Amino acid sequence: MKKFLLTVTSCVFLSVAFAQNEDSIFIKRIADEILLNGKSYDDLRWLTKQIGGRLSGSPQMVKAEQWGLKTFQKINPDNAWLQECMVPHWLRGGKDEVTAFSALKKNKRAFDVLALGNSIGSKKPLTAQVIEIKSFDELEAKKDLVKGKIVFYNVPFNPTFVKTFESYRDAVGYRGQGASRAAKYGAVAVMIRSMTHATNNFPHTGSLRYDSAYEKIPAVAVGLFDADWLSNTLKDQTVLVTLKTAGHFLPDMIGHNVIAELKGSQFPNEYITIGGHLDSWDPGEGAHDDGAGVVQTIEVLRVLKTLGYKPKHSIRFVLFANEENGLRGGNKYAEEANAKGEKHIFALESDEGAFTPRGFGIGGSEQQYQKVLSWQPLLAPYGASEIIRGGGGSDIGPLNRTQNTPVASFIPDSQRYFDYHHARSDVFEAVNKRELQLGSVNMAALIYLIDKYGF
Amino acid sequence: MKKFLLTVTSCVFLSVAFAQNEDSIFIKRIADEILLNGKSYDDLRWLTKQIGGRLSGSPQMVKAEQWGLKTFQKINPDNAWLQECMVPHWLRGGKDEVTAFSALKKNKRAFDVLALGNSIGSKKPLTAQVIEIKSFDELEAKKDLVKGKIVFYNVPFNPTFVKTFESYRDAVGYRGQGASRAAKYGAVAVMIRSMTHATNNFPHTGSLRYDSAYEKIPAVAVGLFDADWLSNTLKDQTVLVTLKTAGHFLPDMIGHNVIAELKGSQFPNEYITIGGHLDSWDPGEGAHDDGAGVVQTIEVLRVLKTLGYKPKHSIRFVLFANEENGLRGGNKYAEEANAKGEKHIFALESDEGAFTPRGFGIGGSEQQYQKVLSWQPLLAPYGASEIIRGGGGSDIGPLNRTQNTPVASFIPDSQRYFDYHHARSDVFEAVNKRELQLGSVNMAALIYLIDKYGF
Repeated sequence: MKKFLLTVTSCVFLSVAFAQNEDSIFIKRIADEILLNGKSYDDLRWLTKQIGGRLSGSPQMVKAEQWGLKTFQKINPDNAWLQECMVPHWLRGGKDEVTAFSALKKNKRAFDVLALGNSIGSKKPLTAQVIEIKSFDELEAKKDLVKGKIVFYNVPFNPTFVKTFESYRDAVGYRGQGASRAAKYGAVAVMIRSMTHATNNFPHTGSLRYDSAYEKIPAVAVGLFDADWLSNTLKDQTVLVTLKTAGHFLPDMIGHNVIAELKGSQFPNEYITIGGHLDSWDPGEGAHDDGAGVVQTIEVLRVLKTLGYKPKHSIRFVLFANEENGLRGGNKYAEEANAKGEKHIFALESDEGAFTPRGFGIGGSEQQYQKVLSWQPLLAPYGASEIIRGGGGSDIGPLNRTQNTPVASFIPDSQRYFDYHHARSDVFEAVNKRELQLGSVNMAALIYLIDKYGF
Repeated sequence: MKKFLLTVTSCVFLSVAFAQNEDSIFIKRIADEILLNGKSYDDLRWLTKQIGGRLSGSPQMVKAEQWGLKTFQKINPDNAWLQECMVPHWLRGGKDEVTAFSALKKNKRAFDVLALGNSIGSKKPLTAQVIEIKSFDELEAKKDLVKGKIVFYNVPFNPTFVKTFESYRDAVGYRGQGASRAAKYGAVAVMIRSMTHATNNFPHTGSLRYDSAYEKIPAVAVGLFDADWLSNTLKDQTVLVTLKTAGHFLPDMIGHNVIAELKGSQFPNEYITIGGHLDSWDPGEGAHDDGAGVVQTIEVLRVLKTLGYKPKHSIRFVLFANEENGLRGGNKYAEEANAKGEKHIFALESDEGAFTPRGFGIGGSEQQYQKVLSWQPLLAPYGASEIIRGGGGSDIGPLNRTQNTPVASFIPDSQRYFDYHHARSDVFEAVNKRELQLGSVNMAALIYLIDKYGF
C-alpha cells in the first residue's frame, strides 16, 4: 500500500512537473516571439504619432477605432468588429489660462494649468481671491471664508506610499469632488495641485464629477512649481487669480469598443477577455495611458496566432471606449455580454502604463488567487513575480459587478506612472520598447494558463 | 515535556516575530526619512551637472573626490578621508570620426562613433575596406580575409535574454578582446556594434584590453543605426571607411577612494562596506553609471546618522576610484584592508543604475544566502523582493578574492540600463527621483539587518 501510494504520488508529481515544463517551454516561445519580432512598439508609435490624444468624441477617437479594427483584422482573428456605444463629447474649447497677482502687485505669474475633464468653462475671465485648503476637513472648518473665492486644494501626493497608486487613491478625491464641495460654500472656481511626483511643472488633468445639488464651477489642475509658488506667496500676501477656461459638452456621439475574437475549441461559450482602453486625455499622446494596454492587447492576439495556439475557451481582445470620462465602453461590453447570456470566466486589463512588469493583481476567490500564485514560477522569469490579492480594471469592472467575473490587473512598476498620467508628457518617447514588450509577454502567458487550465 | 517544548517553540516564534516587527518599524523609518527628506537626487544633480563625466585622471575626477569628501564630512561620520591610489590617465584626445563610402561612391555616411576606452589613436586618418564579422568563430574561419582591413564586429545584443546583463555578458567580449583578436590576423582597426537595446544611434564606449602579443590597433563603438546601415550596405557593395581617433595615455596620476566610516560599538574591528564608483566615462554625465551608486551610498550614511543608528560593526561608505578602466580603487581598498589585518564581513555595491529596485544578488555561502532570503518579507515592501544566489561588484571583488568576504549587489530593474550605459545619454535627466531613492532605502535596510544580526 505504501509503495502504491508512493507510486501514485510520484505520478502526480511527475505529471505536474511535466505540465509545468511544457508550460515554461510554451511561455518561452511567447517571450522569444515578442522580444524578437514584436509589433507593439511600432503599433504604439502609429497610435501616438499618427493619431495622438484621442478623447471620446474627438476626430482622433474615430481614427483610432478604424486603426484598431484594421490592425486586428491584419492578424486574422476568427472575428473582429466594432461594438457601438454612445460616448460623451467634452471639449477643452481653447487654451486654459490662470494668472496670479500678489496683493503687492510685484508678483505676477502665468501658471501652467489644464481644465479638469468634464468641467465647465469660465465663459469670460474670472478674477477672485485665492484661499488655500489642505484637506476636506480644513474646507469644512473654513467654510465661512470660501464664498466668492477660488479654492486652491494643495494636497500633495504622499511620497511615503511606496506604490504610487496609493498616493493617487489618497489624493484623487480632491480632483473628483473638490469643485462641488467648494461650490457648496460659494466658491467661484477651484484649482487642484496636480496628482504627481514629477519633478517638473506640467499640469495633470483628469475627470471631475459635479454634484447636481450645487452650482457647477470651473476647475483646473496646476503644475507643482506653480502650486508651491502659490502656497509660499499666500503665507504673507493676498493673491488674486484671473482664470479663463472654455470647457463644454457637445451632444453625445457614437463611439465603439473595438473587439477581436478567437473562438474556443472546447468551450466556445465561455469567454476570457483581455483589454485596455483606446481613449485618452487630449494634452498628451496617451502613450502610457493607455496606448500601452491597447498595443499589448493586440500583441497578445498576434503572438497566440503566430504560434498557432488554438484556445479551449473563446478569447476576446477589447480596446474599450471612453474609460477616462464616462466608462461607457466597459458598461456596454458587460451589458451586451449579459443580454446574450455569455459566460465570462476571466477578464484582464492593462491600464497602469508600459513600465517593467512586477506582477498581477487578482480579484477573485481565494482559490483562484492560489491558482495564479501556483503559476508564479512560470511568470517570474519575465518579471511578473508579485502575485497579489485584489485587482481588476475600470473597463472590466462592470463584468465583475454584473456577473461576478474574476478580474485581474497587469501590474507594471508604478514609480514613473504619475510622472506622465494625464499630462502632455505622456508621449511615445516616454515608453521603453522592452518594458512594453515584457508586459505583453506576461499578459499572454497568463491568458494561456487561464485558458489551458480553466478558472 | 511536550508542553515545555511547545512553550520554548512559542517563545522562539514570538521573539522572531517581535524582532521582525521591530525591524519592519525601523526600515519604515528609513524609508520615510529618505522619501520625505532624501538628499540623493540633489547630490546627483550636483555631481552630474556641476562636475559631469569624471574619467580617471581628468580634472573632473579631482573635483568629484573633493566634493565626495565634503559631502561625507557634512553628515558628520566618525571618520572621513581620501585613500590614495595611482590611476591610469587615458584621454580621448579629440573628436572620434568615422566616414563610410560605398564602392559605388553614391553612399557616403558620417557615423556616430566613440573610441573605446584605453584604445590607441589612429594618429592620422586611416582608410581601409570593411569586413563584417558576426562571431569569433566567423573571425577564425575568415582569418585569411582580414589582413589590411577594418573588422566590423556586428554582434547584436540578444533581445531574448530577459535580464539585459546577460545580453551584456554575451556580447562584451567583442569590445574587450575584439581588437587584439583581429590584429592577430592583420586587421588595421576594429569597429564594434554598440552594446545596447536602445532605440537611438548613440554609440556606447567602454574599455578594451590589448593582448601584448599583437599590434595595438584603433577601436571604436558604432551606433546601432549606423551599424545596421553598414551591414545592409555590405550585402551588395564594398565599403571603405576612413577612421580618425586620438586616444592615448598620459602618465598615471594620483587618484583617491573617498571613504567615510561609522565606528562599530561592539565589533569595531569587523567591517561592513557599502559603495559605488566615482569615476565614469567621459561622453555623458555618469548619472546611472555610477553617480547613482555614489549618491545612494552617501544617502545610506545620511539616513543612519539622521535616525541616530549606532552600528555594532564598523561601516565603511566608499566611493571607489577607477572602476571603468583599471579597478585601481577596488584593488587598493582590499590591499590596505589586508595589510592592516581588517576583517571584512560583508560588502555591498550599487553599480547597475538608478532604476526601480528588484532585489539583491548574494555572493556568499548557502547559509548566508538563506539568511538574506529570510529577510525578504522586510525588503519586499520597498521593491527588493527578488533575492538571488550570486552577486557582488567590480570594486568589492578584490575583498572577496583576497579574504573571502561575502559580497552582494543591489539589483535594480535592468531593462533601461544599457540604453544609457557608457553613452552620452547617461545624464541626470534619465534618472527618476523616487527610483533612485528607493534604491537607497533597500540598501540601508540590508546594511541595518547585516549589522544587527551579523553575517
